[in-house]
Amino acid sequence: MSAHTETLEKSTAATGIKRTYFFGNKQAEGNASMKNLLGGKGANLAEMTQLGIPVPPGFTITTEVCIEYYQNSKQLPTGLLEDIRRNVARVEAIVGAKFGNADNPLLFSVRSGARVSMPGMMDTILNLGLNDQAVEGLAKRSQNPRFAYDAYRRFIQMFSDVVKGVDHDKFEHILDEQKKKKGVSQDTQLDAQDLKEVIRRYKELYRNALGVDFPQDTETQLLDAICAVFGSWECDRAIKYRRIHEIPESWGTAVNVQAMVFGNLGDTSGTGVAFTRNPSTGEKKFYGEYLINAQGEDVVAGIRTPEPISDLEKDMPEAYAELVSVYERLERHYKDMQDIEFTIQDKKLYMLQTRNGKRTAEAALRIAVELVQEGMIDEKTAVSRVEANALDQLLHPRIDPKAKLQVIAKGLAASPGAAVGRVVFTADEAEAWVKKGEKVVLVRQETSPEDIGGMHVSEGILTARGGMTSHAAVVARGMGTPCVAGCGDVVIDYSKKLFSAKGETIREGEWITLNGSTGELIKGETQLIEAKLSGNFDIFMQWADKFRTLKVRTNADTPEDAQRAREFGAEGIGLCRTEHMFFDPQRIMHMREMILSDSETARRKALDKLLPYQQADFEGIFKAMTGLPVTIRLLDPPLHEFLPQTQEQIRILAQEMGVSVHHLNQKVESLHELNPMLGHRGCRLAITFPEIYEMQVRAIIRAAITIKKQGQDIIPEIMIPLVCSRKEYQIVEANLRRVAEEELVSAKVSIQYQVGTMIEIPRAALVADKIAEHAEFFSFGTNDLTQMTFGFSRDDVAKFLGDYVEQQILEKDPFQSIDQRGVAQLVQMGVERGRSTKPDLKCGVCGEHGGDPASIDFFHRAGLNYVSCSPFRVPIARLASAQAALRNK
Amino acid sequence: MSAHTETLEKSTAATGIKRTYFFGNKQAEGNASMKNLLGGKGANLAEMTQLGIPVPPGFTITTEVCIEYYQNSKQLPTGLLEDIRRNVARVEAIVGAKFGNADNPLLFSVRSGARVSMPGMMDTILNLGLNDQAVEGLAKRSQNPRFAYDAYRRFIQMFSDVVKGVDHDKFEHILDEQKKKKGVSQDTQLDAQDLKEVIRRYKELYRNALGVDFPQDTETQLLDAICAVFGSWECDRAIKYRRIHEIPESWGTAVNVQAMVFGNLGDTSGTGVAFTRNPSTGEKKFYGEYLINAQGEDVVAGIRTPEPISDLEKDMPEAYAELVSVYERLERHYKDMQDIEFTIQDKKLYMLQTRNGKRTAEAALRIAVELVQEGMIDEKTAVSRVEANALDQLLHPRIDPKAKLQVIAKGLAASPGAAVGRVVFTADEAEAWVKKGEKVVLVRQETSPEDIGGMHVSEGILTARGGMTSHAAVVARGMGTPCVAGCGDVVIDYSKKLFSAKGETIREGEWITLNGSTGELIKGETQLIEAKLSGNFDIFMQWADKFRTLKVRTNADTPEDAQRAREFGAEGIGLCRTEHMFFDPQRIMHMREMILSDSETARRKALDKLLPYQQADFEGIFKAMTGLPVTIRLLDPPLHEFLPQTQEQIRILAQEMGVSVHHLNQKVESLHELNPMLGHRGCRLAITFPEIYEMQVRAIIRAAITIKKQGQDIIPEIMIPLVCSRKEYQIVEANLRRVAEEELVSAKVSIQYQVGTMIEIPRAALVADKIAEHAEFFSFGTNDLTQMTFGFSRDDVAKFLGDYVEQQILEKDPFQSIDQRGVAQLVQMGVERGRSTKPDLKCGVCGEHGGDPASIDFFHRAGLNYVSCSPFRVPIARLASAQAALRNK
Repeated sequence: MSAHTETLEKSTAATGIKRTYFFGNKQAEGNASMKNLLGGKGANLAEMTQLGIPVPPGFTITTEVCIEYYQNSKQLPTGLLEDIRRNVARVEAIVGAKFGNADNPLLFSVRSGARVSMPGMMDTILNLGLNDQAVEGLAKRSQNPRFAYDAYRRFIQMFSDVVKGVDHDKFEHILDEQKKKKGVSQDTQLDAQDLKEVIRRYKELYRNALGVDFPQDTETQLLDAICAVFGSWECDRAIKYRRIHEIPESWGTAVNVQAMVFGNLGDTSGTGVAFTRNPSTGEKKFYGEYLINAQGEDVVAGIRTPEPISDLEKDMPEAYAELVSVYERLERHYKDMQDIEFTIQDKKLYMLQTRNGKRTAEAALRIAVELVQEGMIDEKTAVSRVEANALDQLLHPRIDPKAKLQVIAKGLAASPGAAVGRVVFTADEAEAWVKKGEKVVLVRQETSPEDIGGMHVSEGILTARGGMTSHAAVVARGMGTPCVAGCGDVVIDYSKKLFSAKGETIREGEWITLNGSTGELIKGETQLIEAKLSGNFDIFMQWADKFRTLKVRTNADTPEDAQRAREFGAEGIGLCRTEHMFFDPQRIMHMREMILSDSETARRKALDKLLPYQQADFEGIFKAMTGLPVTIRLLDPPLHEFLPQTQEQIRILAQEMGVSVHHLNQKVESLHELNPMLGHRGCRLAITFPEIYEMQVRAIIRAAITIKKQGQDIIPEIMIPLVCSRKEYQIVEANLRRVAEEELVSAKVSIQYQVGTMIEIPRAALVADKIAEHAEFFSFGTNDLTQMTFGFSRDDVAKFLGDYVEQQILEKDPFQSIDQRGVAQLVQMGVERGRSTKPDLKCGVCGEHGGDPASIDFFHRAGLNYVSCSPFRVPIARLASAQAALRNK
Repeated sequence: MSAHTETLEKSTAATGIKRTYFFGNKQAEGNASMKNLLGGKGANLAEMTQLGIPVPPGFTITTEVCIEYYQNSKQLPTGLLEDIRRNVARVEAIVGAKFGNADNPLLFSVRSGARVSMPGMMDTILNLGLNDQAVEGLAKRSQNPRFAYDAYRRFIQMFSDVVKGVDHDKFEHILDEQKKKKGVSQDTQLDAQDLKEVIRRYKELYRNALGVDFPQDTETQLLDAICAVFGSWECDRAIKYRRIHEIPESWGTAVNVQAMVFGNLGDTSGTGVAFTRNPSTGEKKFYGEYLINAQGEDVVAGIRTPEPISDLEKDMPEAYAELVSVYERLERHYKDMQDIEFTIQDKKLYMLQTRNGKRTAEAALRIAVELVQEGMIDEKTAVSRVEANALDQLLHPRIDPKAKLQVIAKGLAASPGAAVGRVVFTADEAEAWVKKGEKVVLVRQETSPEDIGGMHVSEGILTARGGMTSHAAVVARGMGTPCVAGCGDVVIDYSKKLFSAKGETIREGEWITLNGSTGELIKGETQLIEAKLSGNFDIFMQWADKFRTLKVRTNADTPEDAQRAREFGAEGIGLCRTEHMFFDPQRIMHMREMILSDSETARRKALDKLLPYQQADFEGIFKAMTGLPVTIRLLDPPLHEFLPQTQEQIRILAQEMGVSVHHLNQKVESLHELNPMLGHRGCRLAITFPEIYEMQVRAIIRAAITIKKQGQDIIPEIMIPLVCSRKEYQIVEANLRRVAEEELVSAKVSIQYQVGTMIEIPRAALVADKIAEHAEFFSFGTNDLTQMTFGFSRDDVAKFLGDYVEQQILEKDPFQSIDQRGVAQLVQMGVERGRSTKPDLKCGVCGEHGGDPASIDFFHRAGLNYVSCSPFRVPIARLASAQAALRNK
């Protein structure tokens, strides 16, 4: 012993690093706050031990050792072996058994444990410490030879598979053969003798596969198992899981080596998992299941059906009473709903794990609110406990988790919620079918502004092309309609009215289901669960609103959207896109006439016809947003987006305009651009054709006058898009103010309005100090800013974005969550330089990022005044803003 | 006098500003160094006065007063009148005449004078100080009534037109009527009596036009004239001139008020202009012309034909001798060729102006070199004297300045020099015609890489679309072929083989001339002057090379271009575009096969066929650049640029590849992008299809090995385009190095090569510190950087760029000269951040800006190591780099 201790002290002294943390017998070297070093499981085992809760003794090898292991070409560091031996000895002393001893063997479990739970992603080895001698000792001591040989059989199988990579199925095959030979169907029907034969064949298999005998030296077993657990940090499924859950590779995993306890020692033993409250609903009721005479993996494997936890009370009343007392203590101690694992060995309860339990959004909300009401946590803590993005679940219908699904393809989760309907392939068909009382899902290559009507009546939208900020995705999110976009496996044949995806063919009229929260395309009609908001939602959101400093506005182009967003708590409109207003069939003709006219006079004539429509649009939106600011962006897209698509449309328009079809075709051709995103659009149109914005401003101010005369307050903010220079802004702004003043003077009404700009071109951020000499507010258009800063066309990026995320060049799709290393620098620069000129400059964001929690955290830190997002993301933005404020205090 | 002085002192004391500078009688308050304050003319008048050269006395009102005038709603500042009166009195004292005096009137000229010469752009008033009384006095004193009345007549006409805006033609009409009445044709044939009648009618016209009498108060005349000169700073032609010559509006003009001297007092008087050396050739010989009995404007007006200056020697030997002595003194004093104006009044010489004379590039070079040889200036001064851009004149043929031109349209001056040839409309026709021995000009809507062959054989290229960095423009500049691009007035009808421009129709085979230095499209065959480089060129360029710190490389894709650039002094290749190599008919098929293959195996098969071609290309280029660095950019454009354009081409390719036409069409369609500039190109291709760059690197390294084995040095630099992140660079680089090492190991050859990156995406500049962790050099791709920083597509920007320059939103086309306020910030940031990681990081630029002197000045200041430009701009870049180094010392 003393020699070991000396070695340990030497090694610790030499490296200055403590690599192992012991726990057992109410004492532990670690505690719950040491998750980064000990992993979640190890930290909580130490904490429970210190609380006096019964935990089998053991020790945790730190995550730092994992990092050392990888840095050191997958070798355990020098000195660790001495640490391990010392800890094993302490466990032996507590348990009263000896590791590797033939008569009274101490067995270990070896488990992974990262900072955050990665359920089932990494490896576990149970029953370690058995060999041909020890199994005999265990059989004698337990007086249960079947148990002992089953434990050895399990250990050989697990060790060979997990540690040595021998195919698991080959062992199952041997077991199956043995059952067949005996004419039984259950593992439990094999007796000790059968299992001895199985063990013989297992060892034979091991030798044949690896050319050496199964290791009889238990220390070798232990060191190999530890290496295997470290190695499983880099297994494919763990890497994928980390990517999905954004867990850094650099964290590493800890390893927990813990004395085995056995739930499979007979009918006075058992094992189970439980939640201190219901993880689906949040109801305050002990919830879980257990199996008598079983080891942990039997519960997970699903071979036997577990019993509800309440039945344990009559099976083993004392153990149950202790379990209840322990879970209540743990919840009070951790002040959150716990997910616990336990084993009962011969009526004695042992706790193997406790952690904060995963839960649905509904449960998260209820638990957070009730914990506050129970006095366990304060409101700030409650607000931090619910993941902002999870609120989406509450606002949209979702697929019944029990439904059997035939997923036939996967696209981008472009607009959340689930939709069921019959397939149609055109927006017109969608409208026609819905008139007949059908529910439809609109399936398109990609959508265009002309499809708005059909999109509006559809239950869901599926596109084969386009990214998270494609037309379909943006519009669908605005409407709250589920959408799967950019589903590349879908090949549409419009002429045959069908699409195929990975071998399945779906025709018009057939039922499909979309899961817009996951991107799944599902064949057939699926049962949905409708969204409902509980009273807890309002209480919770009020708490969130107390803590946030960012205002939350919405992107809305219609009075309906504006109204819905207001109900969700929007504090104004941050982006009202005016271009969507021009696609109505009555209006598009005038719009086209305007675009295709050769003279200013002719353009003004066409614009005069559009003005009353625009004015009516704005009146509706102002009414819906009475008392709140409404930011209206002037015309932004390139003009050719409005142009006729077919020769028939051109023919009609030519007639209307009194020009030749040839002339019109030439004009259409001349408006073609190679890179329209970087083309003649936004305020560039106002430099060449000032009359367009003039009409729009006239409509805005006239609408404001009308509403004001009706006695309502309105705060119009006129926003100039795509500005790249001070002078450009100044020229456009001066013209707009001139028109606005004309209208106000002639109406003899005084209205406060502001004129400001989008910052969406990199250069605008670079010269923001100059632009701020004139602009009254900045709104960061992070969609376009991302496009230009990366040089990514969001319409085309789908072709390589997958590879970029896969190869970890991009952590996330930068159109979904703002690129905090690059694009964010320009936002920060824009804010700082703008305010260097105008210290109280109002700054907001109106890109898609305005509804993304990670982006909102950045916007809070960047000192923006508000974020603006689609109506259905307003609650998420409110919560994310509150969390950002609390996090960055 | 003393009262005036007191007033002056008071006003100067009150404002602290000295507004007027006197000169006369060998004394002057100003000097030649005060051009910013006194304007060029005023400063030089003061200087000449101090030198004791005969200059009529007068005073200069400063440019600051001009600025005050505009800030003060076009009112002269308080106190100025007193200053003027004091100065007038000093002139009176010297001349011995009185301003406004009836018997012995002092007359003034009032002239503009900005910091830099703006010839003819602003206003002048002569003979000021005459009225109905003074004219009589002048007549008596001069004993020349005809002279006096003519002076008065001229004054009324000039004052009315320039100061009061009465139409000049109406006065001419009166003069014509008087001549008709008398039956004469020349103004000089009118006698005093006739002129009195003309004056009567002039005054009548004035009264009718303005409702008041012609001002008889001479101080009113003077103040009005001063205001008119200030006012002319903002006249349309002056604004346009400033825009063209990049003269800031804020400079303002000075006003020179100077005692009149008269060249029109009879045959012992005269006036002339001269250059101290020949401004066309630079020959050291006095050069100019004069008129006997004339005022300055008569020389300019061109009514009489002036005599060569040498004839003055026999007409007026004493005056001529003095003039020679003066001009020699002036040249020695100013140490530069002078452009002088003089008047001889009654045999007495007066100098009215001296300034550095404008000259052709040829003359500039010769004068600079000869002044050094004469010991007048040092080499540094010589290098600063020649405008870098002017060298272009020496390298390209130009249109004979004497030729009569019928300009039928104007486009962008996309590639300098003049070209004459017969019109063809396709690249194939161009090649066919040239084979037949014809000279052709290729006329295209826009060119594409497939047109390379035809472009190469054409004398010049004309396109209807596209900007300064369009394909046609870039390729033409590289080849040194004159090009007029984006000539919007040209409407091409390919089917009829003709184009029209502003009413003119030109058919295939007709002759046209292009002036690629001005953008003019000229009908017919025009006489050209061939380019020739004198020995002075080499001497001069060697001086320039002594002072520059920037290296100058070239953009070259062929051994021929590389060779030419080397002859022009290029110190390596900064950009070798590999994509141009794929358009050869033998190669394009393999390229297409590669792009349209569905599997990596098939792509690799096609790439294997391309490898030998690429290797041969690189071998040729390496040979041409032995001993110098060659930066090769890996494939950059989107793949669909290489795709078949016609169904016929698709059919052939489908056969070749053994796939169906339908399949191939689908594949082509799937590669379509909405914004290809922001699409799947550059190193993004290497992330999805690493095999493409692998082939290219293999070809580069194999070529390097071949050349090395031939005993020649080569320094290959492999450049990865379109990088936006550290990780992206790292992945691509690692793969390239792996392939390169494979080749080197297998060849058992050691070659030093570098791997670096373009910085051409805004994000790359923002994260340059991270990218520099791996990259060995940066090359700023300022073309794409400008596109993305502004959000301007260079292919589409022509639609609104004109308006942007017109409205002064942009000072210049940012694709021609780097945007120093915006884009330059990113370049600066990229350099600084890159070097913060790697202090000796080599940084260069390879965009079009690498050949633009203003941009080069910035690149020098930004600390770049080199610029790279098209071969014909290499001398310009060498000179501009030297000037930047001298300027920013």
